[in-house]
Amino acid sequence: MTPNADRLGADWQTLSTFRHPSLPGWTRRPFTAPYAAARAWLAERMREAGLSVSVDAGGNLIGIKRGRDPSLSRIMLGSHTDTVVGGGRFDGMVGVLAAIEVARCLREQPLRHTLEIVDFLAEEPTDFGISTIGSRAIAGALTSEMLARRSAEGTLAEAIASVGGQPDRLGAARSDIAHYLELHIEQGPVLESEGLHLGIVTGITGIARFRITLRGRPDHAGTMPMAMRRDALAGGSSIVLALEELWRDGAGVGTVGRVRVEPNATNVVPGEVELWAEMRSTDPATLRERANAFADTAERIGRDRELHMEVQPLSYESPVPIADEMQAALAAVVEALGHQPRRLPSYAGHDANQMAKIAPVGMLFVPSRAGRSHCPEEWTDLADVALGTQALGEAVLRLDASLG
Amino acid sequence: MTPNADRLGADWQTLSTFRHPSLPGWTRRPFTAPYAAARAWLAERMREAGLSVSVDAGGNLIGIKRGRDPSLSRIMLGSHTDTVVGGGRFDGMVGVLAAIEVARCLREQPLRHTLEIVDFLAEEPTDFGISTIGSRAIAGALTSEMLARRSAEGTLAEAIASVGGQPDRLGAARSDIAHYLELHIEQGPVLESEGLHLGIVTGITGIARFRITLRGRPDHAGTMPMAMRRDALAGGSSIVLALEELWRDGAGVGTVGRVRVEPNATNVVPGEVELWAEMRSTDPATLRERANAFADTAERIGRDRELHMEVQPLSYESPVPIADEMQAALAAVVEALGHQPRRLPSYAGHDANQMAKIAPVGMLFVPSRAGRSHCPEEWTDLADVALGTQALGEAVLRLDASLG
Repeated sequence: MTPNADRLGADWQTLSTFRHPSLPGWTRRPFTAPYAAARAWLAERMREAGLSVSVDAGGNLIGIKRGRDPSLSRIMLGSHTDTVVGGGRFDGMVGVLAAIEVARCLREQPLRHTLEIVDFLAEEPTDFGISTIGSRAIAGALTSEMLARRSAEGTLAEAIASVGGQPDRLGAARSDIAHYLELHIEQGPVLESEGLHLGIVTGITGIARFRITLRGRPDHAGTMPMAMRRDALAGGSSIVLALEELWRDGAGVGTVGRVRVEPNATNVVPGEVELWAEMRSTDPATLRERANAFADTAERIGRDRELHMEVQPLSYESPVPIADEMQAALAAVVEALGHQPRRLPSYAGHDANQMAKIAPVGMLFVPSRAGRSHCPEEWTDLADVALGTQALGEAVLRLDASLG
Repeated sequence: MTPNADRLGADWQTLSTFRHPSLPGWTRRPFTAPYAAARAWLAERMREAGLSVSVDAGGNLIGIKRGRDPSLSRIMLGSHTDTVVGGGRFDGMVGVLAAIEVARCLREQPLRHTLEIVDFLAEEPTDFGISTIGSRAIAGALTSEMLARRSAEGTLAEAIASVGGQPDRLGAARSDIAHYLELHIEQGPVLESEGLHLGIVTGITGIARFRITLRGRPDHAGTMPMAMRRDALAGGSSIVLALEELWRDGAGVGTVGRVRVEPNATNVVPGEVELWAEMRSTDPATLRERANAFADTAERIGRDRELHMEVQPLSYESPVPIADEMQAALAAVVEALGHQPRRLPSYAGHDANQMAKIAPVGMLFVPSRAGRSHCPEEWTDLADVALGTQALGEAVLRLDASLG
């Protein structure tokens, strides 16, 4: 299977143009107009590839190529096309475009298994406090509590309905998926630094996310003596530094990426601060212990400063191991293409985290320049994208022949 | 002179209603629709009090009662009607309404000096990085650099023009003011804790303000190892805590009240942070030394974390002493009203800071419940507001008789 690199590059160019005009970088947030326009364009590409296109109950855009044997489970390829604010043009996009290109290349070639190409809804963190929304839905892991969460615009259920999903019809996990494969950019520096072009993912990091609310007292910044203050931002700052300290040994990473300060005025002692904190490790015990330690530390800082604290766990995804057989199958494909089958873990979460709950998953990485991601400078050479697409297609052919 | 407490209370009630509908507390930001509506209403109250009303070049709303002797300099009373976001109903408002009530009470009583009642433009900190904009204009302290500063809506000059000012006609300080008097809430806990109702201000705190910009690198929060990060928020948090530590001894106060984080997303290492920091002391040497020490500390933190730093001084107001003779005159008025003349410094800045550059100033305080200010719970008993108004009026009569 040989992808058409020019066609793939042209698709990438076009999809990049669907972005928010007034936000930095290449921002395409879910549930927005640029996202809807991008999906309409994607659906058209899927139809051109001969796929039958629909939106499932969870709001995922799915293109289906029927297999010859309807009794077999399906092979699913996918990724996502939403971005973080100020994000780039490769994280997610590459996996969806590659999957469509695979379908185009295999258009005239009958497969035994039905092939599904998925643009998962809202993989990146959202205002609802969760990420990987669409793949959660497919994995039966979108709870009614999650569906009832609110952003400024309304509930998650309403947001899913707004993209054509049917949140009231969400239910059990799908049980008809034989294998899930995803091509993604590495988002880290390993492949580039070793001069390699393809990576085979050995496991995906677990992620624990918290929202911490600190409530102090919004006093006049002149007249309230230091000793009598209850400064929510000073408390929040201590928590930011405590999280950094907790992960200084490199056993994983911890980040406070998002902050809200009220009333956020120069001459008012901050009365309320919200922090969104996350930590990641590929080791299950480390992640569990440190998540607990962080929550304890935050509570202690709040007590010491007489702040009212809420430490709310938003989500906890355990690390996802990837089966040796799947790694071996992908390694065989990579070697057959003349490349070294470098195995490495993923420190980014993916839709594969959710899919691993219901099917064996496999992931291929292509290099990220300087390891940069979630920023406008994110870059992967289009030749590597084409190579990854070829590996993805070859893996489909291999699994289609060997499975069932 | 006996103010009409009911009339004053009704005015207070009405002025409170001009506020931003979707912001917390009793917010009335300058250059907004609620502010314009409040000023239109105030101008009407001034006219009813027999004052001739105009807006000066600096955008101050001024009502004038002509004195019998045009050769004499003027007595000015004033304060402001803008608030911080999430502010209360007393800071500033009380001084303007009291001054109008004084004019109403003295309507039939000729004075030797011309009396000016001023609602100063934009006393609270603004997006232009400065406060006390209107009184700065009167004191000739609004520089062309300040006028060219930009908010999201445009330059300060444009903002002043939008409220009826004439920024291109701003120039030298006014030289026709004999005395400036201001009634204000204490905004601190001293008077209430001592069971007193009137305070005489001995001096006004100096204020040094900085904007600090930290630029790191916005990396993916999973894939970038802790040791390779340049996290602007971690640097900012260190600065918040360093400022708190610097003023822990109570020689003044230091506050980071406002923060901006970019891109402010849960799974992105913060790439850029802006902090607005201020510090206050009534002692000139302490303020100067600590402002320098803070700037040095911030620079060092930036260097240690390999962040690109900008430490930009926004404003530096020296502490303002108040002349013994003015304190004595106000003390005599307070004693004549049967109250103890408690003298105390002001840890809040006021329009009087600017006015002190061009005229002797005097300030009277009324108590703040629990010392709270710049918050919706800000409260002063209306009986104390009426008492303060009476003292202000008596002080005008005393100065009018004794001066020139």
